Amino acid sequence: MPPRYEVIGVEGIREVRPGDGVADLILAAAEAQGTAIRADDLLVVGQKIVSKAEGRLVRLADVTPSPVATAMATALGRDARLVEVILRESRRVVRMDKGVLIVETHHGWICANAGVDQSNVDLGTVALLPADSDRSARQLRDRVRTLTGADVGVIIADTFGRPWREGLTNIAIGVAGVAPLRSYLGEHDPAGHTLQATILAVADELAGAAELVMGKLDRVPAVIIRGLGLPTGDEGSKPLLRDPSRDLFR
Amino acid sequence: MPPRYEVIGVEGIREVRPGDGVADLILAAAEAQGTAIRADDLLVVGQKIVSKAEGRLVRLADVTPSPVATAMATALGRDARLVEVILRESRRVVRMDKGVLIVETHHGWICANAGVDQSNVDLGTVALLPADSDRSARQLRDRVRTLTGADVGVIIADTFGRPWREGLTNIAIGVAGVAPLRSYLGEHDPAGHTLQATILAVADELAGAAELVMGKLDRVPAVIIRGLGLPTGDEGSKPLLRDPSRDLFR
Repeated sequence: MPPRYEVIGVEGIREVRPGDGVADLILAAAEAQGTAIRADDLLVVGQKIVSKAEGRLVRLADVTPSPVATAMATALGRDARLVEVILRESRRVVRMDKGVLIVETHHGWICANAGVDQSNVDLGTVALLPADSDRSARQLRDRVRTLTGADVGVIIADTFGRPWREGLTNIAIGVAGVAPLRSYLGEHDPAGHTLQATILAVADELAGAAELVMGKLDRVPAVIIRGLGLPTGDEGSKPLLRDPSRDLFR
Repeated sequence: MPPRYEVIGVEGIREVRPGDGVADLILAAAEAQGTAIRADDLLVVGQKIVSKAEGRLVRLADVTPSPVATAMATALGRDARLVEVILRESRRVVRMDKGVLIVETHHGWICANAGVDQSNVDLGTVALLPADSDRSARQLRDRVRTLTGADVGVIIADTFGRPWREGLTNIAIGVAGVAPLRSYLGEHDPAGHTLQATILAVADELAGAAELVMGKLDRVPAVIIRGLGLPTGDEGSKPLLRDPSRDLFR
């Protein structure tokens, strides 16, 4: 039997509001469309519905920009209140040029605008990334286990840009129950070499695989990955962060 | 019906040698395992078997390193002949530090070691990236059409690292018959915003989805993506290259 797996979008999840149970909504929608969650499924959940459920929303009308945010906003040609929100979510500014603000978030992710997003939320409101997206992933995983008994890996995903290549890709910002990296260290290839450190970011590849059925309008905010036997793990997403001492592009 | 697709690894492809017909080998193996290629499939092919079939192999014993390569190899703690091969495949050096050599290849890809790879080839031999991986993808696509009548998109993929995040991901270095980017420009989300420039690198996400069944030992060097209706395109992989004037991380 060849290795194979299936990627199934979960449709019909209603607009999520603060306090909603995201796992409950996903499970109900998956069952309604005839693809109820099973043991060994992996669930990829878009960051936006998690942020909404957790109330990670800010009304720009409530934000008073600092002088620094105001100056940066002028340089960037952006809304000073939005820049203020981005800076509050940031540990440091990595690049600021050409209207683009690349920061390191408090989680350690390097991305545009600290992941602060105006799409698919009410006008005048912005959505922040979950405060602790690994915790969010664990909570989703625990709730799925409580409701169904199924032991599923969970990835919370968001679309990030990257240097050198055009286009965003969906990547993992929260991980529970699955190992985010897969290592081929020390295995031998058919010619007898010991393979050098080959470490694959499977959590990011899973997020990308899910994005292909997600679309961008939040109509498919969760995706089931079925049939891929994946090594479990409880390290969360942190192994995906490169150690600054090993990064040539800080 | 929820949006869904399947990812099927193609096993049983024998060791590829210069002059082999990669498309012929893939089609035969796919048929032998009961998953013959169909119209509207997309085929992701690992770079290594394409490079081998095209004879993109260099014996290090035949390489005389230049003084520059020798000096760089000393600084990096690497084989001077290997560094010579990497420099020949490169347009410029982007970073050289901590034993790592990041270059821009003649194709415009920015990656470690110009994609020159010692794994899964004979000892003392290295494999280069295809000279023109979009042409390679087009030739595969044309040959599949000739043999089967099926009009399939083809992606040639390799695993690249990236700044800030640990782990390699599989990305597209050659594309034929499928649009590498998908744009959501100007669509409206449910709250009435016009979405800002949201462009997804679907070709890279497809390559990553394929990697999840590929493993690293070339036993699954080709993957069928089935059931995902993808917009066609004939622009190849070049739209994935970021314009230097828009790149903050050159």
